[in-house]
Amino acid sequence: MVYAVGLMSGTSLDGIDAALVDITGKNETTSVKLVKFLTVPFKGTTLQNIREALSLESSDVEKICSLNIELGECFAQAVLDVCNKAEISLNDLAFIGSHGQTLFHIPYARDGFYASTLQIGASAVICERTKTTVVSNFRERDMAVGGQGAPIVPYSEYILYQKPETTRLLQNIGGIGNVTVIPKSGEIADMIAFDTGPGNVIMNELCLHFFNQEYDKDGFYASQGTVDYQLLEELMAHPYIKKSPPKTTGREDFGKQFTSSLLEKWSVGPNDLIATATMFTAKSIAEAVKPFVIGKTELIIGGGGSYNQTLIAMIKAELPEVKVLIQEEIGFSSEAKEAIAMAILANQTLQHCPGNVPSATGAKRSVPLGSITYY
Amino acid sequence: MVYAVGLMSGTSLDGIDAALVDITGKNETTSVKLVKFLTVPFKGTTLQNIREALSLESSDVEKICSLNIELGECFAQAVLDVCNKAEISLNDLAFIGSHGQTLFHIPYARDGFYASTLQIGASAVICERTKTTVVSNFRERDMAVGGQGAPIVPYSEYILYQKPETTRLLQNIGGIGNVTVIPKSGEIADMIAFDTGPGNVIMNELCLHFFNQEYDKDGFYASQGTVDYQLLEELMAHPYIKKSPPKTTGREDFGKQFTSSLLEKWSVGPNDLIATATMFTAKSIAEAVKPFVIGKTELIIGGGGSYNQTLIAMIKAELPEVKVLIQEEIGFSSEAKEAIAMAILANQTLQHCPGNVPSATGAKRSVPLGSITYY
Repeated sequence: MVYAVGLMSGTSLDGIDAALVDITGKNETTSVKLVKFLTVPFKGTTLQNIREALSLESSDVEKICSLNIELGECFAQAVLDVCNKAEISLNDLAFIGSHGQTLFHIPYARDGFYASTLQIGASAVICERTKTTVVSNFRERDMAVGGQGAPIVPYSEYILYQKPETTRLLQNIGGIGNVTVIPKSGEIADMIAFDTGPGNVIMNELCLHFFNQEYDKDGFYASQGTVDYQLLEELMAHPYIKKSPPKTTGREDFGKQFTSSLLEKWSVGPNDLIATATMFTAKSIAEAVKPFVIGKTELIIGGGGSYNQTLIAMIKAELPEVKVLIQEEIGFSSEAKEAIAMAILANQTLQHCPGNVPSATGAKRSVPLGSITYY
Repeated sequence: MVYAVGLMSGTSLDGIDAALVDITGKNETTSVKLVKFLTVPFKGTTLQNIREALSLESSDVEKICSLNIELGECFAQAVLDVCNKAEISLNDLAFIGSHGQTLFHIPYARDGFYASTLQIGASAVICERTKTTVVSNFRERDMAVGGQGAPIVPYSEYILYQKPETTRLLQNIGGIGNVTVIPKSGEIADMIAFDTGPGNVIMNELCLHFFNQEYDKDGFYASQGTVDYQLLEELMAHPYIKKSPPKTTGREDFGKQFTSSLLEKWSVGPNDLIATATMFTAKSIAEAVKPFVIGKTELIIGGGGSYNQTLIAMIKAELPEVKVLIQEEIGFSSEAKEAIAMAILANQTLQHCPGNVPSATGAKRSVPLGSITYY
């Protein structure tokens, strides 16, 4: 048994996800088992410090310098916490994979800025506090070989989900929807990953507008409405939906502004509009994954959208030939999955094995990711 | 023969110092020989980008994100340049030690900021472009064990300068003066390093004020003046000079403001004032090092001040029992010395050996420094 901890701190700022795993092997023979998972919320002024460092207006070099060390301390504490909870001694911990907190990401070079990505959270501090070797800064190397540094989890998704007789579609529904396709009997190089279109972003904007709610809990509002098929048709005609993968989108395409223009142009009741937006997400996912539905296929849904029962029902209806599952049904939460991914990537790096998936990131070749801080 | 490159990019922003060395062994048995050294000036808008990232006012997270990658490209190019000039193939290069560009340094925790240090210059980019393993980010680990992350070169100074029968005092004269004491037959733990007081900072401010010159070239103005001993006595009474080491100072103690108050209070002619300031630097160095002059002792002077012949003559006069040498006289320039230091630190790290000197940085223990990005 080799114990390792994977750490993830996402852009949602919910806290630090720490997954203690038992991991052996490498490459396709990697075997990984989740032992304990927890999310450690940010304490004190740390959350405010991150928010300031994320903003173009309030960030500066002094704040980033200090926050790098502060987050190193927080990440180290999360490792101590998860080991403590699992009653595993630090002496039995072989290594830590730490994603770091993303402060900025520039996927393509533009007007004086290099394609670049910035994750912070001092690896030396994590290493010292935990007396354990740390692998960190995974995305930079993928960018150095021409990739976008994202998505970073497909390699681990292959390890965790590949099945010889079943094509598996890993659909994440956050603000934006994205899918990873793992063809049955496929190799890592056969994987495809791209953004399917909107996830929860439009529904959330509408809930905020109509009901001052952050999101449509369990899909309640959508369940009370009726889909407006004329509007749905127009939505599905969006150029992004028509585009072939590989493709990426963001809130700049389907966010606040997009929702405002919908509200301006269409006089549809609140519940009906939310139902239609929900159906737009469902249908755009279904259309995006259909070309990859060959033989026995499973669609495994994770992210906040997996809790929206109306959305899940709609996706199921659109893909009758596909077995639709929720992330939790097959073992662990979406948050745990991302943290486990960091342990898998670190395991690869320590054995000088690759961790990126060029067909997903656009990199010229597969390379080991990250830097190693040995204890 | 093991070839390695050490990279340093100092706060003076003169460019990237690249030292190609032949290095073998580890710890006290390290043997290092300089093969080729060059300074690669920053090109295009890089210098401006660094200046903006250094400033509290103009820095932001996007600029730092992009500059990290940009500097990675510049550092990689410096490696290619020095290997090219030495006609050494990248295939024969074993590793690179990269200091990175310091953007900020907070030696002590203060009002909401953690003790921290920030060096950038993407190691993954250097690694990919040079097809060589990179060790980087040396200072963070020393801070993680309670050190100030500075000075970072004493370990390499021991390797490069230790002599069984001679105490060697390595005096650097930049804006501020600092010394590293290597006692004869001493071990690394016996080393002491501290700031002696002003280096060139007061002389430079006076040259700018009186003659619109950046500095006193070769000590010309000082050589034309006479020391005002009454003023000198007052200068030597400065509390910093009286303080026992370990101690650090900066431009905030002896910079623009200090010089302005001198000019206000004392009506001494330009050359005489510059001569007195030069003598202040000489005498403060002499007084600081005297307690360490035991038996055969050499004072080896580096930094910009080593070119000020009047200053050197004054130091020699103050320390008649010490053999005073200029850095270049014993093999290589001050810039080369710092770059070589990075190759020595990287060599230590790759062999899991320590690189900091706790008696110099204040760290609780000696640790390997930096993170490794394997090619």
